[in-house]
Amino acid sequence: MLVEHHIVLTEKEKNQIEIADFGLNKLESTGLQIVTYVNTDRYCAKELVLFPNQTCPEHKHPDRSNGDKGKEETFRCRAGKIHLFVEGETTEQPTVKPPPEDQKYYTVWKEMILHPGEQYIIPPNTKHWFQAGDETTIISEFSSNSDDKSDVFTDPNVKR
Amino acid sequence: MLVEHHIVLTEKEKNQIEIADFGLNKLESTGLQIVTYVNTDRYCAKELVLFPNQTCPEHKHPDRSNGDKGKEETFRCRAGKIHLFVEGETTEQPTVKPPPEDQKYYTVWKEMILHPGEQYIIPPNTKHWFQAGDETTIISEFSSNSDDKSDVFTDPNVKR
Repeated sequence: MLVEHHIVLTEKEKNQIEIADFGLNKLESTGLQIVTYVNTDRYCAKELVLFPNQTCPEHKHPDRSNGDKGKEETFRCRAGKIHLFVEGETTEQPTVKPPPEDQKYYTVWKEMILHPGEQYIIPPNTKHWFQAGDETTIISEFSSNSDDKSDVFTDPNVKR
Repeated sequence: MLVEHHIVLTEKEKNQIEIADFGLNKLESTGLQIVTYVNTDRYCAKELVLFPNQTCPEHKHPDRSNGDKGKEETFRCRAGKIHLFVEGETTEQPTVKPPPEDQKYYTVWKEMILHPGEQYIIPPNTKHWFQAGDETTIISEFSSNSDDKSDVFTDPNVKR
């Protein structure tokens, strides 16, 4: 998929692709594949690859215990389609739904649809979740420092 | 070039591609084409496109007058080849040279060559310059906040 979209990785990066199933054991419906290019104390860049209709569960990036502001991130659609849900006015007829058995852990319903070339900035401390469209989807994520362990998921069963 | 490499831009982005000739009026040999995806107060992401053998002149990103640290940036080669020169041990036989008439304004000679998928982190306040190889070259630049007016160029004729 990455090759097809002219995204070249080193051998080391290929061996370090992170498969995140969030401890839910149903990667095909809920999970993410992550290539982290760089993550310094100031900024971070990743590619997120999602299977068709795969969902990243609802979470937010709160302020850090050391007083640093929470992660701010920009999602840029490279290929496929992203259904992104954030805090705000509920979209009455969302075009996708989270896995039915987990619906109670999805609480923000303002839908934005990002096509290739489109992007959205998610402020710190803002709940969000997203789902790929019917094709494999690539998201370039540009952000401040990334620190998975400070993420807060709505579903208490998630382990990151 | 961007299309060929599956990099999709919105119409607005296409209209805002920055052509930087650094006030030197010889874009073909010295200059940069820049697409800025996002530049918040915390992080920045751009694509830099260089013509074959085009040079970005030597400069550094010093600490800001407000006390913020200078820009730290990661150059990731997407296509083509980057000859990147930074402070450090001089490379005795560099594989490329800057435009001959400006050679005196190039003072750092530690060469690194980046092929697609390879990247390098340039610390703040570190002199660097770079030149594309024989093909059109695309660099993804991930960094802290970008503020062109705080850049310091070695060549006093450069206007940014």
